[in-house]
Amino acid sequence: MGPHPAVAAIRLAVRRVLHDVLTDLDAHAPGGVPAAPAHAPGGVPAAHAPEPGRAPLVLVACSGGADSMALASALAFEAPKLGIRAGGVTVDHGLQHGSDLRAAEVVARMTALSLEPVESVAVRVGREGGPEAAARDARYAALDTVAEQHGADAILLGHTRDDQAETVLLGLARGSGIRSLSGMAAVSAGPGARARYRRPFLQLDRQTARKACMVQSLPVWDDPHNADPAYTRSRLRHEGLPALEKALGKGVVEALARTARLSRDDADALDSWAAEAEQSVRDENGLLDCAALYALPPAVRRRVLRRTAVSAGAPAGSLFARHIEEVDRLITGWRGQGAINLPGRVEARRQGGRLVIRQG
Amino acid sequence: MGPHPAVAAIRLAVRRVLHDVLTDLDAHAPGGVPAAPAHAPGGVPAAHAPEPGRAPLVLVACSGGADSMALASALAFEAPKLGIRAGGVTVDHGLQHGSDLRAAEVVARMTALSLEPVESVAVRVGREGGPEAAARDARYAALDTVAEQHGADAILLGHTRDDQAETVLLGLARGSGIRSLSGMAAVSAGPGARARYRRPFLQLDRQTARKACMVQSLPVWDDPHNADPAYTRSRLRHEGLPALEKALGKGVVEALARTARLSRDDADALDSWAAEAEQSVRDENGLLDCAALYALPPAVRRRVLRRTAVSAGAPAGSLFARHIEEVDRLITGWRGQGAINLPGRVEARRQGGRLVIRQG
Repeated sequence: MGPHPAVAAIRLAVRRVLHDVLTDLDAHAPGGVPAAPAHAPGGVPAAHAPEPGRAPLVLVACSGGADSMALASALAFEAPKLGIRAGGVTVDHGLQHGSDLRAAEVVARMTALSLEPVESVAVRVGREGGPEAAARDARYAALDTVAEQHGADAILLGHTRDDQAETVLLGLARGSGIRSLSGMAAVSAGPGARARYRRPFLQLDRQTARKACMVQSLPVWDDPHNADPAYTRSRLRHEGLPALEKALGKGVVEALARTARLSRDDADALDSWAAEAEQSVRDENGLLDCAALYALPPAVRRRVLRRTAVSAGAPAGSLFARHIEEVDRLITGWRGQGAINLPGRVEARRQGGRLVIRQG
Repeated sequence: MGPHPAVAAIRLAVRRVLHDVLTDLDAHAPGGVPAAPAHAPGGVPAAHAPEPGRAPLVLVACSGGADSMALASALAFEAPKLGIRAGGVTVDHGLQHGSDLRAAEVVARMTALSLEPVESVAVRVGREGGPEAAARDARYAALDTVAEQHGADAILLGHTRDDQAETVLLGLARGSGIRSLSGMAAVSAGPGARARYRRPFLQLDRQTARKACMVQSLPVWDDPHNADPAYTRSRLRHEGLPALEKALGKGVVEALARTARLSRDDADALDSWAAEAEQSVRDENGLLDCAALYALPPAVRRRVLRRTAVSAGAPAGSLFARHIEEVDRLITGWRGQGAINLPGRVEARRQGGRLVIRQG
C-alpha cells in the first residue's frame, strides 16, 4: 500500500523540484550543457556549479506551520534517494513573546525528521514598507546568509497555490499592471547567494499540505499573525477570498494561480521587447527619438519610458503608472508641455523631437 | 453658478467622447488625415465617413437605469452644442412581465430629454452561453440593427468604472490570461455596422451617475436582475467586491479598472508580436519550425500556437490554456508524444522537426 494521497502529492512536488535542482547543477557543472534556451528560465541567473565530489545541499525554510512542515517532511524523505543532503533553517522574527522558544521547537522538529544541518537564525525586523514587507525582507536576508554559509544549492519555500492566489489579489489591488499580477515565481534567484529559491507547492493547495501533516502525525504551529485582521493578507484569506469564491465559484484560487503564471510569462516577453526597443529608438547621440517612440505599441512604449526613467535615477518603487502616463503624453499628446517632474529629482522633457529624461 | 459636480462630471465625460467622434469622422472624411498611427486605435477599423451635409448622429443605449439615464441626459445636453444629433434606443429583452410597458416608459423619458430619433426594439433572448451572455448577444445585435437603420455614427453605452471592475473579476475567475483581464474597451467596433460603441463612463463611478440623476430629478429604474443572487455579476457586485474592498481598501475598483486598461494594451502588443512571429517561424513550405518556435519567449510561442489552432478550425471559445500547454510540450518537452487532440477535430502533431496543426 502506498502513502496517503496527500503525502504522495507533497512528495511528488518535491521530487520534481529536486530533479530540477540536479538538472541545473549538471548543466552548469564544468563541461555541462545548458538545458534550456535563453528565454526559458525567466531571466534567472544560473546557480553556480557545486564543488566536485560534494553532495548537493538543499535547505527548507520552515516556520513550523503546516505548509513548511509538510515541505520539510517531503524533503527529508526524497532527498536521500537522489543523493542530496537535506537541511533546514527557521527564522526567529522576534515579533512575539516566546518566539525564541518556538524557533528552538521548530529546530527540534526538523532534527527529528533527520534534516542536517538544521539552524535557527534570529533577525531584527525593521519598519520599512510596512510590517509584512519588513518581516519578509529580514527573513530573506537571513536565509541568503545561511545558504551562503552552508554552500546550499537551493532553498525550498512552502508557499502554496492559496498563498499565490492571495499574492495575485494583493497585486491586483495595486493596479500597477501585469507584473504585479504575476505573484511569486516557482524559481527565483537569491540576491548574491549561490542558491536559488524554489517553491515546490505553488500548484498544491493548502489543504493538502495540512492533511499531509495530519496523516504523518507532524505537529504544526498556527501563526496567530495569519488570523490577525490587522494584516491585509489575513483579511484577504479569511474574508476577501471566501467571498470571492462564493460569488465566482470554487475555481477562483486555481484561476488566480494560473493568471500568475500567464502574467509572468507575458510580463517577461514585454520586458524583453522593451529592452530591445529602447536601443532601436535612440538616435545617433543616444537620445530617444519621439517619432520612433510614437510608432511603438503603447504597452512597449510605456515600458521603454519606465526603463529610461529608472536608469536616470527614479526609484522604481515610487514610479507609478500615472507618472509614466504623463511622460507618455509628451509623445502622444504633444502640445508644448513643460518638463514633467518624476520621483528622485528626475525630469522628462521634449526638446526638438527628442525626449530627454535625466536627473535635475 | 455651474451645474452640480456630478452633472458636470457626466457632461465632461460625454463631451470628450463626442469630440473623439467628430475627430474620427473628420479623419475619415474624403481628404481627411488619419489622426493616429496604426497602433493607436487598438485595431478598431475606422468608422465610415458621414454623408456630406448631414449632421452626425449619436445614439445612447438606455435601459432606464441610473447609468444610462445619466448618459442620455448628458448626451441630450452636449450634442446640440457640437452640431451632433442625439437619439436613443432601448431594448426590451422580454424576460420580465411588463417589460414592454417598461420599454415604452423609457422611450417616453428619452423623448422628454428631446432625444430624436427614439426607438424601442423587442428581442428574443436565446440560451446560448448562459442567460447573461444570451441577453447581451441579443442586445448588441438589436443595437447594431438600429444603428444601421438610422445611419448612426456612434452608440454610447453607460458602463461605469464599477461595471469594469466587475468584468475584470469575472475574467480573473476564468484564469485564461491577460486578454480576459482587459474588461470592456472604451471604443469597440460594431460587427458590420458603421457605428462604433463608445463607453464614456468607463472611468466614472456608479455613484456619480446615480447622483447626477437625482439632482436632475430624472426617474430611474432599478433592474431587479441587478440584485438577483442567481446572477454571478450580481453576487459579485453585492458581496464579492464589497468583501474585497473591506480586505484591500477602497481603491480596489479603481485598481481593477486600471488593470483592465494596462492589460488591454499589453494583450494587443503581444498579439501583434505573435502575428509577426507566426510568419517568421514558418519554413519554405509554410510549416511551423519547432526550433524556431522553441527560441520564442513562451508568452509569444503559446499565442502563435493558439492562432494556428484557431486558423486550423479550433473554436476559439473552446480552446483553453491547458490545450495550448499540451501542444507547447511538443516543443519544450519533446519525448516522442503522439498527436494532441484539440476541439473542433483539430490535431497537433510533431513530424520531423515541424509542428503540424490541422483538422483531422
